[in-house]
Amino acid sequence: MAGGGDTLPLPREIIRKKRDGREHDSAELGAFIDAFVAGEVADYQASAWLMAAFINGLSEPETLALTQAMLHSGNVLTLPSVKRARVDKHSTGGVGDKISLCLAPLVAACGLAVPMISGRGLGHTGGTLDKLEAISGFRVDLDAKRFERIVRDVGACLIGQTAQLAPADRRLYALRDVTATVECIPLIVASILSKKLAEGIDALVLDVKCGGGAFMKDVKSARALAKALVSVGQGAGKRVSALITDMSAPIGRTIGNALETREAIEILQNGGPADTRELTLELGAEMLRLGKVCKKREQALPLLERALADGSALAVFRRLVVAQGGDARVVDDPARLPQSKAKLVVPAPKSGYVNGIDAYELGLLAIELGAGRTRADQRIDPAAGFELSAVVGERVTRGAPLLVVHARSRSVCQSVASRATATYEIEARAPRRRRLVIERVG
Amino acid sequence: MAGGGDTLPLPREIIRKKRDGREHDSAELGAFIDAFVAGEVADYQASAWLMAAFINGLSEPETLALTQAMLHSGNVLTLPSVKRARVDKHSTGGVGDKISLCLAPLVAACGLAVPMISGRGLGHTGGTLDKLEAISGFRVDLDAKRFERIVRDVGACLIGQTAQLAPADRRLYALRDVTATVECIPLIVASILSKKLAEGIDALVLDVKCGGGAFMKDVKSARALAKALVSVGQGAGKRVSALITDMSAPIGRTIGNALETREAIEILQNGGPADTRELTLELGAEMLRLGKVCKKREQALPLLERALADGSALAVFRRLVVAQGGDARVVDDPARLPQSKAKLVVPAPKSGYVNGIDAYELGLLAIELGAGRTRADQRIDPAAGFELSAVVGERVTRGAPLLVVHARSRSVCQSVASRATATYEIEARAPRRRRLVIERVG
Repeated sequence: MAGGGDTLPLPREIIRKKRDGREHDSAELGAFIDAFVAGEVADYQASAWLMAAFINGLSEPETLALTQAMLHSGNVLTLPSVKRARVDKHSTGGVGDKISLCLAPLVAACGLAVPMISGRGLGHTGGTLDKLEAISGFRVDLDAKRFERIVRDVGACLIGQTAQLAPADRRLYALRDVTATVECIPLIVASILSKKLAEGIDALVLDVKCGGGAFMKDVKSARALAKALVSVGQGAGKRVSALITDMSAPIGRTIGNALETREAIEILQNGGPADTRELTLELGAEMLRLGKVCKKREQALPLLERALADGSALAVFRRLVVAQGGDARVVDDPARLPQSKAKLVVPAPKSGYVNGIDAYELGLLAIELGAGRTRADQRIDPAAGFELSAVVGERVTRGAPLLVVHARSRSVCQSVASRATATYEIEARAPRRRRLVIERVG
Repeated sequence: MAGGGDTLPLPREIIRKKRDGREHDSAELGAFIDAFVAGEVADYQASAWLMAAFINGLSEPETLALTQAMLHSGNVLTLPSVKRARVDKHSTGGVGDKISLCLAPLVAACGLAVPMISGRGLGHTGGTLDKLEAISGFRVDLDAKRFERIVRDVGACLIGQTAQLAPADRRLYALRDVTATVECIPLIVASILSKKLAEGIDALVLDVKCGGGAFMKDVKSARALAKALVSVGQGAGKRVSALITDMSAPIGRTIGNALETREAIEILQNGGPADTRELTLELGAEMLRLGKVCKKREQALPLLERALADGSALAVFRRLVVAQGGDARVVDDPARLPQSKAKLVVPAPKSGYVNGIDAYELGLLAIELGAGRTRADQRIDPAAGFELSAVVGERVTRGAPLLVVHARSRSVCQSVASRATATYEIEARAPRRRRLVIERVG
């Protein structure tokens, strides 16, 4: 893609241009990425360019050109046999974020196709693939053909990244991770969109998390990321919108893979925590709107609520689990999910209202319990995590359960208990009501 | 060197610090360079850091720490058997710059020791080693023991960089070359000084070239480089000063290796072009001053002039050539130097005064003739180059010789003739007198 030919500048000259804060044309940027994937631009040249781009920035046309080059560095799915509108959702990552697990079957039950390629836990956040793998037998490493067949037959399929999709992103991300060039909006945008556009989607809803438990700590930076994602995604010819949502506290009442899968099933059973349900419905409404099932959020919400109430969303999830090799009995009996050997009920240290829960710290503690990785080759404990007995806005009484720690041994549970307690901010006065959806962009 | 221990931050955190424009402490910067040389910091991490340093800068303490770390990445010579003051000169690179060849024997004849480690041609500029190798048999690849013995016995020795001296510089420079991070004063300073301080010198005079034929095109940037070199060199405990000298036109009347060696011998024979002689004397005076042979330039100049007039400087050069394996007969008979197969006299296109000669362009044309390399593995033609029949300030008559092209064939000579002519700026009025030494720093 992106041109070529003998007249394109040397890698060094392209690096020099960004070093000096000048703007690339899309042909040269495309050629640079092509050459990187072909091994003609060395890692040390790519990382110098990444640092120059980090410091001096990339314009929106540059970000689009980078996205397109990364997208076309590998296969781009077209899913020709899928006749429904294909709409995906991507979250920038939070703590307790199990929304994909219930959202994909829910919107599929309402008529969309959801070809979702997800990731694993990163830093303090969990990963959709790890959560699904808490279901015995569940396979996330399906090939493109099987992926397409399941999307066609079931309406949704959730798999992991393959080596064929956007290989430039995988290589660039590995470099960014070790060269301190991760937290850069244009590079984040190109990374997310190049992978998502490779799924063969028509539309994409972005859940841009904002707050202490998110990568974007404040509304201003979340809004900048959301706007860039929407503009560049639209520039690539897709229908794209974003919801900026609150990540000052964990989502729902569970953190940890099997625990979160159980909560997602509860949502599909028309139950579950109010905030998890609200987020699922709001993101679902946005997906139905972009997928042209409805014109307005207000029309979409009743459709979604009905699919939860009549069991059709849960039925899609059951078929998805079967199609992906998982033990579908968990759908009706979540107690079949992995259970931790030890559970420790941690009591509230004082009475009052929960004004806040430090999602970032609780995410890190969950990793310490075994729910996530600090190195890519680590195995995780699917049963480990936290159940939050009290969440933001609720009243607790001193000595009553605050949270339950799940881990492989009582001593591991105890090792995090006091730090987990300290993530709670308990005050005499009730907090203001938490606004989950902060704003919509696009 | 430079600390160590478990508490030093990860490479990524060091890169992040410079990315964000913060200042390194010398321990962490030293540890980063040590780890790079040890292979624990990857090339792609070093290049990301180099780009961050290029864009966000390095303070003087950081530049000193970087210099020290690079210096101590390899052996540092101490030359214990050399009892004289050891003073070297380094030029930032120019066109027709053969000063080292006559300067080293000259100041050695006046009582200094000159342990000079030089380089090869780079870009449009020539290299001292290539010029010396125009002398049949001359060896520049001597080991440290032989180097020390020649410095002790002859007073001067000129060799090439060895793998043992400042290996961090060699590896970092190779990265800078392909990642557009060369033209950065702190990185240039650390590169120059780490190599020069490894020679075991007491003092160093820097010839910072300024003008179209130099890497620093204007006085402001040359002054910034000179000041940084002097401050950091002094910070490393050495006596250091710099002369900012004119490189708007070539030095002397020759460009090309054998031609320049011949001109250097003419200087040592108390002849040669006025500007080459003046620069040699001014740099020599500065070296004698830093080496404490004299207190003042005005005392040094007569000593230097006498050493040229009485043949003692030439005698040192003859002994140096013998000690380094070269054919010493060239010293008395420069016609024994390699002669080009073809010579083409290019006439002046009009009458008038030479107001300028484009040194940069003439340097590039000399490479085209074979006097330099465009790739490191290329062989050069020692006889190729230009003799300038007319230099800046002189009057020429239309049709009279302007310059003589030396190359392997008449057609090669002819291929550059018109472009060589175009490097001359010939005007009706005489130019202002050229000021060779623009200012002294330190």
